[in-house]
Amino acid sequence: MAEPSTKKSRTHPPYELLYWPAIPGRGEFIRLAFEASGVSYKDVANETKDGIKAVLACKADDCIIDSDGNPPAFAPPALRVPGEGKHGKTLVLYQTPTILCYLGDRLGLAGEDEVEKHWILSHALTALDLNNETHDTHHPIASIQYYEDQKPEALKRSKDFRENRLPKFFGYFERVLKGNEGQGQGKHLVGGKLSFADTTLWQVLDGLKYAFPNELGAIEKEYPLLFGTFYLSVKEEKGIKEYLASAKRLPYSNGVFRHYPELDRPGK
Amino acid sequence: MAEPSTKKSRTHPPYELLYWPAIPGRGEFIRLAFEASGVSYKDVANETKDGIKAVLACKADDCIIDSDGNPPAFAPPALRVPGEGKHGKTLVLYQTPTILCYLGDRLGLAGEDEVEKHWILSHALTALDLNNETHDTHHPIASIQYYEDQKPEALKRSKDFRENRLPKFFGYFERVLKGNEGQGQGKHLVGGKLSFADTTLWQVLDGLKYAFPNELGAIEKEYPLLFGTFYLSVKEEKGIKEYLASAKRLPYSNGVFRHYPELDRPGK
Repeated sequence: MAEPSTKKSRTHPPYELLYWPAIPGRGEFIRLAFEASGVSYKDVANETKDGIKAVLACKADDCIIDSDGNPPAFAPPALRVPGEGKHGKTLVLYQTPTILCYLGDRLGLAGEDEVEKHWILSHALTALDLNNETHDTHHPIASIQYYEDQKPEALKRSKDFRENRLPKFFGYFERVLKGNEGQGQGKHLVGGKLSFADTTLWQVLDGLKYAFPNELGAIEKEYPLLFGTFYLSVKEEKGIKEYLASAKRLPYSNGVFRHYPELDRPGK
Repeated sequence: MAEPSTKKSRTHPPYELLYWPAIPGRGEFIRLAFEASGVSYKDVANETKDGIKAVLACKADDCIIDSDGNPPAFAPPALRVPGEGKHGKTLVLYQTPTILCYLGDRLGLAGEDEVEKHWILSHALTALDLNNETHDTHHPIASIQYYEDQKPEALKRSKDFRENRLPKFFGYFERVLKGNEGQGQGKHLVGGKLSFADTTLWQVLDGLKYAFPNELGAIEKEYPLLFGTFYLSVKEEKGIKEYLASAKRLPYSNGVFRHYPELDRPGK
């Protein structure tokens, strides 16, 4: 895929995202950061023939250290940045929060000062905790087993998730938006401009709306800033809006966010 | 408690840890960073009468923003740093990885350069993921319910945890130690000196040895660097050794690391 020849893309290194193809998954948090900032990147497994081999290689069980001196990844996503590693070699980073932290500074998504930067990381981590808890609604016993083999437990965990966890997380973010309303106008968690905390939380909310449509439909109105302002506003941000309308935005399927009607609030 | 009047403690702000009293929990990752670096801190709920009120206040469900302009904490631990917030006010940070990231730079536990700093954060995050998965072995359905009410599910989840997850995490860290053996000699995950990735991983290993003694006893030998070198070495680090021998080190009880024999590998 040809990279847009904007000034921004020319002044950045050739970032490469290593993540599973065909699903949004945790890779989506990284994609949204790039898309929101208009900086080009290569989504290796989706854009390159045999690109999945690079994803498998970075997390291979026999990888001890790569040829550029990087430790292996525990799991994708990973980010490759030619020229930015030790001694000018290629840097490889893994763990979604680390990648967001690294890119946040470089893409202008990490706030106005160091205090904001730390708050942004904290809120992104909390959104990612919610992402992980969402995964466990359909896989409460073992991530390597099929959903169908842990369905009774998934029904129990999802009930608790809907009744206790979602209100706790949504209530928290509603308060953060309220506390920052003077600068953020309900559109930003920290300060007056878009950050990777915003894009990360937005992705989790969007996934939850897909996975639990009845539950979200029933309770969204209790969090007017979060769903009435923030969710709608991030969706319209320059870069994000165009990306969401494009074929690059992958549909939800069998990743973290799955729509199993039996795990959702019963319909009318 | 009187602070030691070392040069280090005089040049640092008066750090305050806000965490539940009487358990190690997630607060322990922060405590170990301070203890390893010899920098003093106040463990508010353990050292101050009514200190728990400050812990409850920072995460109160009706807190929208504090009087210094900080967002509320989603959950403890939080770190208060007078003078380091916006406009010279008190800074409050939450989320364990954010606090470690912030302190890492200031306590000299974040490696030699920016590349190492990012690797250190990644490995600490992976160790904290293992910490979270340990919690879910006894609470696979709902964190607000009693263990006794989710015991059948806990037995299933613990079996998967012991058979699949522990080998995956231990094997990963063994490889990281191996890849860094030239500099780290099996004692450090990144570079040639102690980092907050080391102290964080060490705490999780120590907790697992308490919670799953049979399982760890049976498989430790498969990870010779991790348990034969790293675990033993971090325990002897200056600062850590003295702390572990002191009354300040709290015993495991009803926190993340719990010893339920029925969840462990059956004994002989």
